[in-house]
Amino acid sequence: MESTDKPAAVAATTTTTPSTTVAASKCPFNYSAVDVGLRVVLFAAAVIAVVVMATSKQTEMVPVPGLPTSVRVPFSAEFTDSPAFVYFMAALSTTGLYSIITALASILLGRKPSYTNTILLAFALMDVVFVGIVASATGSAGSVAYIGLRGNSHVRWDKICNVYDEFCRHIGTAIAFSLFAAILLVFLTMFSTFALYKKIR
Amino acid sequence: MESTDKPAAVAATTTTTPSTTVAASKCPFNYSAVDVGLRVVLFAAAVIAVVVMATSKQTEMVPVPGLPTSVRVPFSAEFTDSPAFVYFMAALSTTGLYSIITALASILLGRKPSYTNTILLAFALMDVVFVGIVASATGSAGSVAYIGLRGNSHVRWDKICNVYDEFCRHIGTAIAFSLFAAILLVFLTMFSTFALYKKIR
Repeated sequence: MESTDKPAAVAATTTTTPSTTVAASKCPFNYSAVDVGLRVVLFAAAVIAVVVMATSKQTEMVPVPGLPTSVRVPFSAEFTDSPAFVYFMAALSTTGLYSIITALASILLGRKPSYTNTILLAFALMDVVFVGIVASATGSAGSVAYIGLRGNSHVRWDKICNVYDEFCRHIGTAIAFSLFAAILLVFLTMFSTFALYKKIR
Repeated sequence: MESTDKPAAVAATTTTTPSTTVAASKCPFNYSAVDVGLRVVLFAAAVIAVVVMATSKQTEMVPVPGLPTSVRVPFSAEFTDSPAFVYFMAALSTTGLYSIITALASILLGRKPSYTNTILLAFALMDVVFVGIVASATGSAGSVAYIGLRGNSHVRWDKICNVYDEFCRHIGTAIAFSLFAAILLVFLTMFSTFALYKKIR
């Protein structure tokens, strides 16, 4: 990390004609370190969301329609019951994998100043795709979870969180981490774009 | 539109030293025209999604639980029945407004070369926020619509699209246009970012 700082520091102290300096030295802070840091946090958020969602299974004794209410059978709620939660798992797993690959790429390639612009562009272009993926996963899981929490009387979809409280707590936590991951990806995209912009001026 | 082309065309024909030319003339195509075009298409997609969702109300005679099946009462399905669809409407309305404001800004400010870099940055930063908004709205409306179409036997949420066919057709069309808008916003963000990148090289 320190090796990429030195040319910028040297350029700032030895010359007063910024228009003639190399574009790569114009970035005032260590882009790579912040980028890697944010991607590690993104990885953590995605992994927590996936693990919390995966461990959401809860079995409860529930009454069976058509039989007396005293007759109850064990019935499990798990994330595979809803296609929205399965999509959520697929999206957040992919994001976790993506974040760790890009963090490693940022560490390895960020040391080479010649690659920096291309990396910034590649990250900005890929990050925005993942913004869409994670935001849509958060939205889809969130809306199903909201029906589970409140139900929908118009179409007689009963809430289930009064029975499967632990399941819903897991789902809610996973969605919160997913929302955090989506916001983080928005900031990562903005960060790469702003770093590109700073190199023009 | 034509006025922004002229400096680039003149620069390309009068000089062969691209490294010394003004950064604004390095973009090989008319950024503003493509940007405005994409934003007008985005506006159309958002407006169609909002209008199709708003006109989705359908009234059907449905049986009442606890009464004989021959007894049916009129019951309406409309987008306000689901918070996910209300969020969808709010998100797509905002996106429509945003797209037309940015299209006008692109037309008015795109003629001033000094503003171009700042506009590209501002568009890229704002577009990525709207990628998140529209993607999450598409995801949330899509997952509720999927339950309406297929139901969920695990939690006994019955499908409603066998009764409210026209309503579901409207919802499905609105979601398709919203998905298109989200993809368009991803391309708009990529476009602005790539235009910034081209100005560095």
